[in-house]
Amino acid sequence: MSIKSTNITAVAHRVPQEERWRAAGHRGGVLWFTGLSGSGKSTLAFELEHRLFAKRYNVYVLDGDNVRHGLNSDLGFSPKDRAENIRRIGEVAALFAEAGVIVLSAFISPYQRDRDMARKAAGAQFHEIYLSADVSACEQRDPKGLYKKAREGKIPDFTGISAPYEAPAAAELVVDTANESIEACVEKLMAYVDEKFGFTQG
Amino acid sequence: MSIKSTNITAVAHRVPQEERWRAAGHRGGVLWFTGLSGSGKSTLAFELEHRLFAKRYNVYVLDGDNVRHGLNSDLGFSPKDRAENIRRIGEVAALFAEAGVIVLSAFISPYQRDRDMARKAAGAQFHEIYLSADVSACEQRDPKGLYKKAREGKIPDFTGISAPYEAPAAAELVVDTANESIEACVEKLMAYVDEKFGFTQG
Repeated sequence: MSIKSTNITAVAHRVPQEERWRAAGHRGGVLWFTGLSGSGKSTLAFELEHRLFAKRYNVYVLDGDNVRHGLNSDLGFSPKDRAENIRRIGEVAALFAEAGVIVLSAFISPYQRDRDMARKAAGAQFHEIYLSADVSACEQRDPKGLYKKAREGKIPDFTGISAPYEAPAAAELVVDTANESIEACVEKLMAYVDEKFGFTQG
Repeated sequence: MSIKSTNITAVAHRVPQEERWRAAGHRGGVLWFTGLSGSGKSTLAFELEHRLFAKRYNVYVLDGDNVRHGLNSDLGFSPKDRAENIRRIGEVAALFAEAGVIVLSAFISPYQRDRDMARKAAGAQFHEIYLSADVSACEQRDPKGLYKKAREGKIPDFTGISAPYEAPAAAELVVDTANESIEACVEKLMAYVDEKFGFTQG
């Protein structure tokens, strides 16, 4: 029994991050997309996920679809709940990064304060990616008809219309989704990931 | 502009799970360890993580260390908070499983109801692993001196002493950590993972 007890303490350590990175051929980390509704966050995140997966990166998208119905299903849309929504996503993204995955988070995340918390959780492997399309460009697209509803007053506190969006003060990368094609944006992101996360390119 | 808008809808889909599994060479899923304090959850989880990593499995341990200080740092130890603690861990484990990772969760999780919620979140890839060491075996080891403190009344609601532990009714695997060596337990778990998650063995 005493030997077993000794072992219990001895083996309880994690696989070192450098070993994970070496085995995967790339670093883990967070690409935190931020931008208005309609700026292309989900589009770019999913397209990037496909491309990175094809290059054998471990990659995963966190978005409203897989977070709001599960982990954050207890949260509403009050200011407090919105902040908690982003806080939890930041913490989950940090866990994925620690596991060696490149996680792409696709949430409006309009407040710098909330994005800074997510950055703090993930540490050095956090990259803030600002999709810089402005309200007029996003409203012109309005793929889900949300801007129309917001203008009609049917959606309260809609970012860019009736609630503020704080553009990142110092994003690691700015992608101009108003004026560049999706293909050009994806190419830019792929080059960024290869440079910042890839070992084969370094 | 109109072509871009069309693309926005077209590309927003995930990498299919089967493609992830094929690329990784194994399925993703959850090994949900449950058992008393001192039953060997963390020990076995970390040892298994090392062994699976060496066999090139994508694997990651969720435990109090990386969850309580981050994602669940807002939670205390009230019954409500304890349930919420396990609920969130179950949801995060499900996300990791969807990302193709084998996640090993190492929490006492004393209530069947809470474990059933975690199972529901992860679906078919959820495996409940019961570490069946009983109170007397765990108390004899008491690696952190917690049972002693609990007996002295210094820790309220201590599972197995002053709070109930509901043994799993239908665990996928029972590991007898009271009577088998750590090595034997790990071997059993490795064989289980290869059988249930590995494609190379199938």
